[in-house]
Amino acid sequence: MPGGPLTGIRLMTDARRQTLRLRRVAIDTYKENVAYLHRDCAVYRTEGFQALTKVEVRTGEGRRRRVLAVLNVVDDESITGCEELGLSEQAFEQLGLPEGRSVRVAHAELPPSLDAVHRKIAGERLSLKDFRAIARDIVASRYSKTEMTAFLVSCSQAGLEREEVLHLTRAMVECGERLDWGEPLVADKHCIGGIPGNRTSMLVVPIVAAHGMLIPKTSSRAITSPAGTADTMALLAQVKLPPKKLRGIVRRQRGCLAWGGTARLAPMDDILISVERPLFLDSPGQMVASILAKKLAAGSTHLLIDIPVGPTAKVRHTAEALQLRKLFEFVGDRLGLHLEVVITDGRQPVGRGIGPVLELRDVMQVLENDPQAPPDLRQKALWLAGRVLEFDPDVRGGQGYAIARDILDSGRAINKMRDIVKAQGRNPVRVEPGTLQHEVKAPASGFVNGIDNKQMARIARLAGAPMDKGAGVDLFKKLGDPVETGEPLYRIYADFPADYRFARELAEKDSGFRIGDRRPARPAEATFF
Amino acid sequence: MPGGPLTGIRLMTDARRQTLRLRRVAIDTYKENVAYLHRDCAVYRTEGFQALTKVEVRTGEGRRRRVLAVLNVVDDESITGCEELGLSEQAFEQLGLPEGRSVRVAHAELPPSLDAVHRKIAGERLSLKDFRAIARDIVASRYSKTEMTAFLVSCSQAGLEREEVLHLTRAMVECGERLDWGEPLVADKHCIGGIPGNRTSMLVVPIVAAHGMLIPKTSSRAITSPAGTADTMALLAQVKLPPKKLRGIVRRQRGCLAWGGTARLAPMDDILISVERPLFLDSPGQMVASILAKKLAAGSTHLLIDIPVGPTAKVRHTAEALQLRKLFEFVGDRLGLHLEVVITDGRQPVGRGIGPVLELRDVMQVLENDPQAPPDLRQKALWLAGRVLEFDPDVRGGQGYAIARDILDSGRAINKMRDIVKAQGRNPVRVEPGTLQHEVKAPASGFVNGIDNKQMARIARLAGAPMDKGAGVDLFKKLGDPVETGEPLYRIYADFPADYRFARELAEKDSGFRIGDRRPARPAEATFF
Repeated sequence: MPGGPLTGIRLMTDARRQTLRLRRVAIDTYKENVAYLHRDCAVYRTEGFQALTKVEVRTGEGRRRRVLAVLNVVDDESITGCEELGLSEQAFEQLGLPEGRSVRVAHAELPPSLDAVHRKIAGERLSLKDFRAIARDIVASRYSKTEMTAFLVSCSQAGLEREEVLHLTRAMVECGERLDWGEPLVADKHCIGGIPGNRTSMLVVPIVAAHGMLIPKTSSRAITSPAGTADTMALLAQVKLPPKKLRGIVRRQRGCLAWGGTARLAPMDDILISVERPLFLDSPGQMVASILAKKLAAGSTHLLIDIPVGPTAKVRHTAEALQLRKLFEFVGDRLGLHLEVVITDGRQPVGRGIGPVLELRDVMQVLENDPQAPPDLRQKALWLAGRVLEFDPDVRGGQGYAIARDILDSGRAINKMRDIVKAQGRNPVRVEPGTLQHEVKAPASGFVNGIDNKQMARIARLAGAPMDKGAGVDLFKKLGDPVETGEPLYRIYADFPADYRFARELAEKDSGFRIGDRRPARPAEATFF
Repeated sequence: MPGGPLTGIRLMTDARRQTLRLRRVAIDTYKENVAYLHRDCAVYRTEGFQALTKVEVRTGEGRRRRVLAVLNVVDDESITGCEELGLSEQAFEQLGLPEGRSVRVAHAELPPSLDAVHRKIAGERLSLKDFRAIARDIVASRYSKTEMTAFLVSCSQAGLEREEVLHLTRAMVECGERLDWGEPLVADKHCIGGIPGNRTSMLVVPIVAAHGMLIPKTSSRAITSPAGTADTMALLAQVKLPPKKLRGIVRRQRGCLAWGGTARLAPMDDILISVERPLFLDSPGQMVASILAKKLAAGSTHLLIDIPVGPTAKVRHTAEALQLRKLFEFVGDRLGLHLEVVITDGRQPVGRGIGPVLELRDVMQVLENDPQAPPDLRQKALWLAGRVLEFDPDVRGGQGYAIARDILDSGRAINKMRDIVKAQGRNPVRVEPGTLQHEVKAPASGFVNGIDNKQMARIARLAGAPMDKGAGVDLFKKLGDPVETGEPLYRIYADFPADYRFARELAEKDSGFRIGDRRPARPAEATFF
């Protein structure tokens, strides 16, 4: 149990001044520094430390090197001995000293910017100076995970005013590297997420790059969704590319579809995400700052933002989407980013497939002008690509869509995709849809009145997506389609019996489909494509 | 770097189903479960885990045993091999299986009650059912530290309505053990903290116990203050006592002064404190729930709460103290606790000494009826003891103070203290004030207009308190005292040159004393003692 005895005081206060030998403990604690002390170490016994106390590790008095770390207490000398101080990999590298060097350890003072976090918790508005100090401390690993959570939740609950979002964005950009592509127009598109099957980037990038506009697209892998663009693209090509190679590909091909995890762009965001994601924190202010900081750091000059709206989308009402749009515009304008925000139909998944293999099939059908291609995916991609093309001053307003369609229909888009795949490095492994298949049938006749994005994503994830690339859900019916009792609504694909059973059970509890007597009306209020 | 490759999918999905051998990793990660996987472990490479992902560890499909843990990635087979799954000590014990047993690991589903935390972040009011679910999940170690922080900050920022505080208190009591002393009147006193030198418990307990009233007092050790009652009492006697022994002592002596960390009372609070303390989170709702839950679990039936008010106290204005009092009363009444709240003068430290040895000296002077004894500590202790004594139905309202004074003046209090010390086990080690001593002098003549509680606590802590028992600050002047230029205001005690220098430097920057031309008026507005 933590907490040493309270007696034997003289002995302890002497021991307390002892130095310890530095040791690297080969544990990767990700975005959090951890220090390891043996329970019988004199320093641990005397300092009144408890496990998870934050400590400062430093060299002799004259030196400047120091790191902050959360303390773990060790009961095994093979991990950390009584005379040693262990540091997890990241912390060891930050201290930058060889093993065996003498170090001291003390209770850590709080990072100074935590005062601003407390003011935020108390309901105050923070300044650019505050956000800069917070960003500096976070990027220097001076925040523990709990301190980061306190910051995020405090910004999330009371919300950030738009000036604060601007400050946060600026602070996030400043604390990392910033790419410069050396061109006046560097385009990008970004969807705020939440809609399964929404793989438009894999269509927009080849179309826009085929037009000659620079679009160096980097994406994340799925963490909470059944597939990310990087997961799906990885079925075709290498997506983890060294920055220099990526640069060469983009220069020659005008575009790429890569994983964004290799550059040090807006590193504060990556650190915050390590806390945000597991907590499913997703407040408008943080979302806007996070997206725009990444894009600015990546050197984008022109950005199209896609906000899908629907009852089971991230944004449920058009009014909310318009508010979010204004926030994007406010911050983008002040930071010199040419920004267009489009509000799209987020009432149901896009395309038919949900899960990497099935989504790739949809994308390839569109690229190949297959008559079977899902029309909504094609339409949405053309419409978004058209808006991006209109960033080109030589493209007349309203002409983008037609140009995009020409590029797609003529085969120039698929040729560009092939070139990009070749340049990134073809992935020779071919994956098929899962072998365990189950059809979910309509319980009644009528029309499809609703498809729950979240439920479909959950079923696809339980089936194994995105880890099992062939797992997921294939939709046979979409909103407004007539159905007969017993007609299949969708098919679940899985590779493993347990996943298969879990996904089926979830679909039995709630299929995600709503069947009604009347065909649902298209919502008239929004700027739907 | 985290994140495995995205290729070689078939291989990975097969490997993913493999079981791992359970291993105990002798690391104490305190109130957080941690799982260790080797970076080259097939399961790690395929599951899309990142370090700090939360995982579920379980045995074969039929079994029910499972624990949730945060993932750390290991690069050293001597800590966790490629075929092994390591669990930190607490997690290993929770799973309750022998080493070598086959286990599986998967992405953890979120604890169900986290939904309530999200509703709280969104500004909703939570129900008793919500708080019960949160308490259950927290006590079962299903929350990571970041999830606990999200809960605490969300309750802190938007605040809790009084019904929510009641629900939280109830939920906290229910999820742990509850002592029953088998008597109708079990008294306790509690100060909300923030005032250095405020060691009244060491006087109130012997006085009240000498009267014959049951007062089984357990206290915490100092974490953010220069001394806690347990730290100071530890200079006299053993304070870490097994529950059974403690029970015997209380039965015979009618009171005790022990460390409260040994019983499993309101364990949720201990877990939350592991996050609250390092973050200095201290919202009224959580404070009330935390204090009352602990006291209810400890079997108290009658409780006196001390709320010191002053410009540098935790509570700065009487209006705020009255609001807090009403919240205490509301929750106490509904939970059947007889509760009195007194608002006291918190404008300056109580007594003269700050730090364990110096505070003990003050306490002993009062007990010994030494004419040098600090009058404010004596007065406050008598006044509080008197209020506690009036819980006795046989004590007439208003008579408590006189009874307390009789007990103290007659020597019955110090005799009781001696009995308690003997029963708990005398601590033979004697500690003197630190040998490095420095006097801080008045920069001008006039009257003491203010003493900053927080600054005095900081100076005492920098000097080494509470780790160095003899370190601290000894006050020569108190509020309203006249001073001449160059007259000493207080003396700093330290044992080690570095601490000594730091404390002196801090006192030079800001001595904590305000000297003015006029004697400050006593505040008339509050129920000051």
